[in-house]
Amino acid sequence: MRIVVLTGGIGGARFLLGVRAYAREVGADVTAVVNVGDDLLLHGLKVCPDLDSVMYTLGGGADPERGWGRVGESWTVKEELAAYGAEPSWFGLGDKDVATHLVRTTMLNAGYPLSRVTEALATRWQPGVRLLPATDDRLETHVVADLDGGRRAIHFQEWWVRYRAEVPTHQFVFVGAETAKPAPGVAEAIAGADVVLIAPSNPVVSVAPILAVPGLREAVTDGPAPVVGVSPIIGAAPVRGMADRCLAVLGVECSAAGVGRLYGPRAAGGLLDGWLVDEEDAGTVVPEVTVRAVPLRMTDEAATVAMVRAALELT
Amino acid sequence: MRIVVLTGGIGGARFLLGVRAYAREVGADVTAVVNVGDDLLLHGLKVCPDLDSVMYTLGGGADPERGWGRVGESWTVKEELAAYGAEPSWFGLGDKDVATHLVRTTMLNAGYPLSRVTEALATRWQPGVRLLPATDDRLETHVVADLDGGRRAIHFQEWWVRYRAEVPTHQFVFVGAETAKPAPGVAEAIAGADVVLIAPSNPVVSVAPILAVPGLREAVTDGPAPVVGVSPIIGAAPVRGMADRCLAVLGVECSAAGVGRLYGPRAAGGLLDGWLVDEEDAGTVVPEVTVRAVPLRMTDEAATVAMVRAALELT
Repeated sequence: MRIVVLTGGIGGARFLLGVRAYAREVGADVTAVVNVGDDLLLHGLKVCPDLDSVMYTLGGGADPERGWGRVGESWTVKEELAAYGAEPSWFGLGDKDVATHLVRTTMLNAGYPLSRVTEALATRWQPGVRLLPATDDRLETHVVADLDGGRRAIHFQEWWVRYRAEVPTHQFVFVGAETAKPAPGVAEAIAGADVVLIAPSNPVVSVAPILAVPGLREAVTDGPAPVVGVSPIIGAAPVRGMADRCLAVLGVECSAAGVGRLYGPRAAGGLLDGWLVDEEDAGTVVPEVTVRAVPLRMTDEAATVAMVRAALELT
Repeated sequence: MRIVVLTGGIGGARFLLGVRAYAREVGADVTAVVNVGDDLLLHGLKVCPDLDSVMYTLGGGADPERGWGRVGESWTVKEELAAYGAEPSWFGLGDKDVATHLVRTTMLNAGYPLSRVTEALATRWQPGVRLLPATDDRLETHVVADLDGGRRAIHFQEWWVRYRAEVPTHQFVFVGAETAKPAPGVAEAIAGADVVLIAPSNPVVSVAPILAVPGLREAVTDGPAPVVGVSPIIGAAPVRGMADRCLAVLGVECSAAGVGRLYGPRAAGGLLDGWLVDEEDAGTVVPEVTVRAVPLRMTDEAATVAMVRAALELT
């Protein structure tokens, strides 16, 4: 059995813990197609927050409290950069994390594509699933917002980390998406999948940038594998993060039904065959999509495995 | 009074502490022209060991025990790079130090020359002397040595740090020297100096690379300012470091007389008007050079100031 997961963010990384555990039980093969829209250059270092969240989480190196970055992290480099007055100062690079970015940046500058670099980094972390960036090309999520009295576009991370998404926001733009190509293996993995899962990630800034790579939305909607999504919203709130603010920009209701309808039924050109929502959202209707309600809190790996099993039972 | 110091290495950095203290006493102006031959790229970071030794030492941030790098340094990045199997592993970058290299590398990649970058870094450290790299261009000291059964050229740092200068060695080559230009202000500082001091630095790999920049040797030998050197050798041993191994490669005797003669008298196209040697080396003769013997151990700043005063009395 071949499982492909479209994923991004910390929720996606935790979901993959359950997918991996399930896959080990049944002998399945897992490929995670990871959002790169959050990636950015900081102090000359290529930082890939979503790839790293997955890699650290599956490799046992993530900080379970903070949710992002490395466990036992220290902040000497960050403090020193601040002492130099180096900008930007709103994004904190941990010392352990810096080493990952140094290795990645050195390989990228030597000409290796991000997918190969990710594979090399994963030899240390042994995540147990195949990690593929959605694309090796530059694809950055920018946000059009009102700032300093004018409307301008800033990198998603600046909007998210520096402004905490608390500025009047008009649009998300996936810069570079038109000319991006799927990373080697991504389209093939989707075409060869027995099931495609959409992780409970932010639909607007984690899942949408993946599908913005030309060919990938079609690979999913027109592919042979059934597609099951897991709602990142329980009740009227995101399980984690700020999906509510992102959905508001699109005028989409922050609910399991709202996100399910945003993804839409495969039967009508959308993504979903099945949609897994929390018990609290039992009764959610997404036309032409099979909806099932189960507990969706990823409190531990066993709870997450149960979610994965429920999602696969929808196919 | 305008003092120019040709310097490199840790001995040179400590000597500058004395020059600065002396200059503050008498209201003199100090320009340090610093060796860049040790500079190298590590994990994509531009590392300038000699500029940093001077900057950290004069800025109060150097480790007084180890002699190089930052006081209170930590090594998380280094350990993490090792966990990735990243090469080279023989050069240890401290966490604090990494921040300096990140700022420098980012500025260099943005197009600023090393001299401007050094000026920017110095705004934090306030070294109290003007720091100028000998050149903004690439000038790397490589070492021709017998390694792995063959003769090959390696970067000076690899020879020094990895092989501890303990391999059969044939030659030092200053790669890029032929086409290097003096950094802005260097030739002007030498031309406008009231005295040029040669710090008790390694003559072969600290001072020689500076003078290998076309025009700089002539600026010193043909300039208006008297030139006084301070011996880095006391008795038959370097005060610090491995100048003995470097001198041996050139077939030069490891002694105050040997180095004094290597530099040679200005009267015969060499560098020196005066040559300061240790008390232990009283009686040293360098033809056509005024030699004076005083205590040359830089045990503290007062001792170093006394050396500087003695050197200036030779002019």
